[in-house]
Amino acid sequence: MEKDARKLILVTNDDGFQAKGISYLTEIAKEFGEVVVVAPEKGQSGMSHSVSLNIPLFLKSHKSDNGHLLYSCSGTPADCVKLALHKVLKRKPDLIISGINHGSNASVSAIYSGTVAAAREGSMHGIPSIGFSLLNHSSDADFTASSHYVRIIIAKVFENGIPDHTCLNVNIPDLDLNEIVGIKICRQTKGKWIEEFDQRTNPSKQDYFWLTGQFSNMEPLAEDTDEWALFNNYVSIVPIEVDLTSYHVLNELKKWNF
Amino acid sequence: MEKDARKLILVTNDDGFQAKGISYLTEIAKEFGEVVVVAPEKGQSGMSHSVSLNIPLFLKSHKSDNGHLLYSCSGTPADCVKLALHKVLKRKPDLIISGINHGSNASVSAIYSGTVAAAREGSMHGIPSIGFSLLNHSSDADFTASSHYVRIIIAKVFENGIPDHTCLNVNIPDLDLNEIVGIKICRQTKGKWIEEFDQRTNPSKQDYFWLTGQFSNMEPLAEDTDEWALFNNYVSIVPIEVDLTSYHVLNELKKWNF
Repeated sequence: MEKDARKLILVTNDDGFQAKGISYLTEIAKEFGEVVVVAPEKGQSGMSHSVSLNIPLFLKSHKSDNGHLLYSCSGTPADCVKLALHKVLKRKPDLIISGINHGSNASVSAIYSGTVAAAREGSMHGIPSIGFSLLNHSSDADFTASSHYVRIIIAKVFENGIPDHTCLNVNIPDLDLNEIVGIKICRQTKGKWIEEFDQRTNPSKQDYFWLTGQFSNMEPLAEDTDEWALFNNYVSIVPIEVDLTSYHVLNELKKWNF
Repeated sequence: MEKDARKLILVTNDDGFQAKGISYLTEIAKEFGEVVVVAPEKGQSGMSHSVSLNIPLFLKSHKSDNGHLLYSCSGTPADCVKLALHKVLKRKPDLIISGINHGSNASVSAIYSGTVAAAREGSMHGIPSIGFSLLNHSSDADFTASSHYVRIIIAKVFENGIPDHTCLNVNIPDLDLNEIVGIKICRQTKGKWIEEFDQRTNPSKQDYFWLTGQFSNMEPLAEDTDEWALFNNYVSIVPIEVDLTSYHVLNELKKWNF
């Protein structure tokens, strides 16, 4: 797809404006239009869809050598999107992209993810929005193969749009380009984090706890899930809904006769 | 329903362990079984489903005069549930209840809500979980009418259970008991917050922004929505899904031919 200077693209993430993943995403975005980056000043992993109700937000403009506007924001990824839409961008953007996250946001990690929340916030304002994540937590992860698929997916979104109140949660396996099989449209895997807490005692004799744990896939054989796709070397795309209602349970509850 | 000493109930919230709403909820819970409270040490409104990945958690035991165990936790509502399940409770609880929140969590506020996230976290662990909210932000709100409906809904949940991977988001209008019409099972209203930022300058000449704004109901006439129910003096119950997948969009995406 050719660059279209009339297209305005907002880029954000949850790893902070200096993360490697967002610099890759920003460079790809510039192939498609005018780019403005508004991203957290510090890492905001696990911040989900939180917003700053009780603390003020600060916005800092940074010099970028590469022809895009760059701002860091003291708040969460969702704050970044809200502030960008209302105080930074001169008009509603044509696309919001978030990431590329350092680490998976598949299955229920989508719920805890600031990357996905930023995309969902965009979709709440009627803007096509995508969250991208690479299955590698390292700050120095290799985004080469990711870039190829990010480009393909952005082009498809510009071609087709995304239905209102929905965003895309894209996860990319940590593989070389020739090892990735293709793209698979999936549903969110049923799974959970089996948490453990690393309990320690500080010098003042107070106990404290570090959250840790591991992901447990409750349906490893389900071929229509994002975890299955990733395990089988596909890029996964899950459409994420703003409406949290469980419609099948809704009908069941109606039989309760309050 | 009679009190059953074998029932273990975890109580949490997002307004902090000293809020008025959680004291009401705790007293009601004690009518049903053994109660343990693990709630944030400070207000955590708007924290959504965030978890503390990069800071340690502290847990403090408090004296309670009323025969239940009471802990405050330095983290978010979702942290409270995780920590309670893994480090505080001697076994898996039979019910998790969160609230009573000071303020509405209807429509898309459910997404930003720590109260609802705590309930959703519970449902991810296979525990029947309910978030309760009263449509009154004041710290001194009157929870008398709420208490009546909280009691009814808890009894119904113990009677029927809640299907896996679903929790209930209950909102209660700020009315006297005789003004509330009844309980209505609803879907989440399509709506959004129309944000404005109150922009100010601090003594160091830095601009800063307070998030503010108002809710806009995109379907005020839809009688099956929670906002309609609340506006018409009903208590609303929306079943909330852990699975964020948009199934109707999923089928559409499959036609994109990647």
